[in-house]
Amino acid sequence: MSYVKNDSGKSYHLQCTGDALETVKQHGKPTDITLFGSCFCPFVQRVWVTLEHLGIDYDYYEVDPYKKPAELLEVSPKGLVPALKLNNYNPPRALNESTVIIEFLEDLASSSTRRSLLPPISDPYARALIRLQADHVNRTLVPAFYRYLQAQEEEKQIQGAKDFVESLGGLLQLFERAGKESVSTVGLWTEGELGLADVMAGPWIFRATNVLVHYRGFSLPEGVKFRAYVERLVSHPTFKKTCSTEDLYLDSYERYAYNRPNTSQVANAINSGRALP
Amino acid sequence: MSYVKNDSGKSYHLQCTGDALETVKQHGKPTDITLFGSCFCPFVQRVWVTLEHLGIDYDYYEVDPYKKPAELLEVSPKGLVPALKLNNYNPPRALNESTVIIEFLEDLASSSTRRSLLPPISDPYARALIRLQADHVNRTLVPAFYRYLQAQEEEKQIQGAKDFVESLGGLLQLFERAGKESVSTVGLWTEGELGLADVMAGPWIFRATNVLVHYRGFSLPEGVKFRAYVERLVSHPTFKKTCSTEDLYLDSYERYAYNRPNTSQVANAINSGRALP
Repeated sequence: MSYVKNDSGKSYHLQCTGDALETVKQHGKPTDITLFGSCFCPFVQRVWVTLEHLGIDYDYYEVDPYKKPAELLEVSPKGLVPALKLNNYNPPRALNESTVIIEFLEDLASSSTRRSLLPPISDPYARALIRLQADHVNRTLVPAFYRYLQAQEEEKQIQGAKDFVESLGGLLQLFERAGKESVSTVGLWTEGELGLADVMAGPWIFRATNVLVHYRGFSLPEGVKFRAYVERLVSHPTFKKTCSTEDLYLDSYERYAYNRPNTSQVANAINSGRALP
Repeated sequence: MSYVKNDSGKSYHLQCTGDALETVKQHGKPTDITLFGSCFCPFVQRVWVTLEHLGIDYDYYEVDPYKKPAELLEVSPKGLVPALKLNNYNPPRALNESTVIIEFLEDLASSSTRRSLLPPISDPYARALIRLQADHVNRTLVPAFYRYLQAQEEEKQIQGAKDFVESLGGLLQLFERAGKESVSTVGLWTEGELGLADVMAGPWIFRATNVLVHYRGFSLPEGVKFRAYVERLVSHPTFKKTCSTEDLYLDSYERYAYNRPNTSQVANAINSGRALP
């Protein structure tokens, strides 16, 4: 099925809306950790959900990722969000790369709030099963999302949809495997707590339900269990706290959907067949 | 500089040699953890060095990755090495993906041998600095190694060398940063203990000193500090335990150097511009 619309030239948003805006308002006062984010960025959303889930205090600093302010370049040399500024060091320290930040926050919480996105360290195998899911998300699901969304020719869009659905299928297999091989109560698939894989995959699954539906006529794979999982994810109170209203995502992703030049470093990497930055 | 030799049709080896063979001989008796490995595979070497460093008992099972035996497919659905079989479960469990296996072994050691490839969890920032290095290795250095080695045309070989050196440079920057921002004694760059980034990058840096030198006329970047680091790495007792003799690598990598069809899933991914499997 060809799915062609016209590029209406909409630009990305510069401020959160809806639930996410309420959350931003509650996190304006200086704290030990500043999160540099952009309202539509899924890599930021991962870190944001993690901070909320782990109960770690932070302040949110919205940046325009296309006009990298000096404050951002100080903490993230490539100018990529998310980035953290750690204000309790003198001089302040910085961290970037969403997966590294999430591990950092996990380590931090282990001695402070004692919350976690993983089963306890006394069950290394249960943790490994969730890490396998997260690894699959990073290496397969995330690139497949962008290849699909940036594909312009009908043939490539069909292949993009196929690859994206296949990578979702791979994730579900890993979910099912973890459900069978472990008694851990971490992870929304088994109706447990929000877990690492939910946080890693969540932002793209959420965008599949709005951006991919709108720009590619995508329909989520059938299956009662999968649909119920997606529903638990997008309605999870912690996840929802970081979600803006649908129009923000539709507007902000138009540039990807028409594969406009220099849409982002992520988009360029996909176009050139390189690993994501 | 063009660097052309003739494909002499050499095949990969099926058994370790030298120091690695001695280590294999010491790990033939059944234990709780079986490592499925192939003698020339760098992803396997990562896990192998980790097992040795953490002091976790294991037995080594050599497999021919091109004729995937049933025992391998049972523990690694795609037939990829490394894979672990965990014999203390009934039925036995399995794990694959080198980075996931290494985190699993770290978790396991935290309650048994108490050894680690990371600074203590009480210093989350020092751990994050090392994780940034490991992330860079996986996303940049490893793909750059294969693009360089598989490049056939002169122009692509020159670009391949440039990209590989650039990704080494990026790693050194992260090493220098960690040296400045943390007092951790983990990591060979700062003449500390063997660390996560050394284990992640080591197998490819080692192969740069033999395979890339032989097939691409590569010379390691100048710089006393870098050369000394490489020397510490390749002569580290734990790392050396997992190294075969040079001929094994030269023979086994000829197929990559001439980019023969179906060299491996890794080689195919590089040729098609996809993420590594």
